[in-house]
Amino acid sequence: MTHTTVKALTFDVFGTVVDWRSTVITEGERLSADKGFEVDWPAFADAWRQAYIDQTRAIARGDQDWIIVDEMHRKALDQLLEEHRIDSLTKPEKEDFNRVWHRLDPWPDSVDGLVLLKERKIIAALSNGNMALLTNMAKNAGLPWDCILSAELAGTYKPDPRVYLKAAELLGLDPSEVMMVAAHAHDLRGAKAVGFRTAAISRPLEFGPGGQAEHLPDGEFDFVATDLVDLAKQLGY
Amino acid sequence: MTHTTVKALTFDVFGTVVDWRSTVITEGERLSADKGFEVDWPAFADAWRQAYIDQTRAIARGDQDWIIVDEMHRKALDQLLEEHRIDSLTKPEKEDFNRVWHRLDPWPDSVDGLVLLKERKIIAALSNGNMALLTNMAKNAGLPWDCILSAELAGTYKPDPRVYLKAAELLGLDPSEVMMVAAHAHDLRGAKAVGFRTAAISRPLEFGPGGQAEHLPDGEFDFVATDLVDLAKQLGY
Repeated sequence: MTHTTVKALTFDVFGTVVDWRSTVITEGERLSADKGFEVDWPAFADAWRQAYIDQTRAIARGDQDWIIVDEMHRKALDQLLEEHRIDSLTKPEKEDFNRVWHRLDPWPDSVDGLVLLKERKIIAALSNGNMALLTNMAKNAGLPWDCILSAELAGTYKPDPRVYLKAAELLGLDPSEVMMVAAHAHDLRGAKAVGFRTAAISRPLEFGPGGQAEHLPDGEFDFVATDLVDLAKQLGY
Repeated sequence: MTHTTVKALTFDVFGTVVDWRSTVITEGERLSADKGFEVDWPAFADAWRQAYIDQTRAIARGDQDWIIVDEMHRKALDQLLEEHRIDSLTKPEKEDFNRVWHRLDPWPDSVDGLVLLKERKIIAALSNGNMALLTNMAKNAGLPWDCILSAELAGTYKPDPRVYLKAAELLGLDPSEVMMVAAHAHDLRGAKAVGFRTAAISRPLEFGPGGQAEHLPDGEFDFVATDLVDLAKQLGY
């Protein structure tokens, strides 16, 4: 396909641009060492992430009322701490640990890739994460977004079509002028369904060394790239 | 006042960060030279701006239905061209000239000031301009926003309190943790009324060398600065 009509790239963030799992595990290990308790942090991180996935999907389907991601992370954290019988964290410590999602580290290629892509196109976050989370994350990780867009601005979650349509509207563009960049097929399919172009990024380590990375089939999306620098190269930059 | 509890600075853009009048005049002069017609461009720029002011105020008061700024600029442009009996512009030329508002030049201190302020606080645009306008402007002028917020996200215009409250909500902050930075008293008063801190910036040339610059009375706002670098200095950066 040609990409010359594409004026903006919108990016999924959790898993595509940042490595949520490693950051949650690293901060968790530090916290449990400080406070003197033991947890299987990889399993804790996966369960925390799964709670987010389940809740955003339920809200996208209309089965649950809207809440922002910070709030769903906090509810899931409280539940996980209870399940693991961890009662040594103060309220400020829980608040702070919940904000680990505001401090996620980028994948090694992310900042370089975004800088390259930004030279030719508008680059915008388009995440289920709330605006405050994404703003703090960008500042912390040095993600050079031209603007931050969020499912919060549509009041529902990806892959609800309204999220992608709201993003195109706010960018002042036709959906065909926007390309969604994501490591997850359901997100790319949601964007494609409303007329976006699509670029699939392989993130084999998103769910850890033994985890089940997503299969992104050839032919379904306009581009399939190994990382964001590779995407820039494929676009000719 | 102390500003240590302030976590984010929100900025008015037209007139406070960018010099709309000079850019419109410069591009207008180039356009009329190319197309061979004559216009009093300073007066044209002032009338175009006034149409925007009148319409955003009417929408903020609830007297008029919501439209985005690109659209109100375009309607006003068509009307002004008719009043000036200019009929030599093609539709694409009018479209392009309407987008001069996406290409406004910053005041000489703006980028340096924003870079300094960004080291310590979140810096966010909070303009009546629509998201696409602000995003294109930031990319063109090198404005290093942490995030772009717009009255468009509240569906009404400053100084309607809902615009400031929506901004604080999206930043995940209490209004008292946000400081509005603007060259216009009505904007600062609107922000102050919902609990924001305020910083007034003098822009004596906003309406041109002979124009009526706004009087920003001492004592009413938390800070009064000569420009954005001066504001950074006053905040101790």
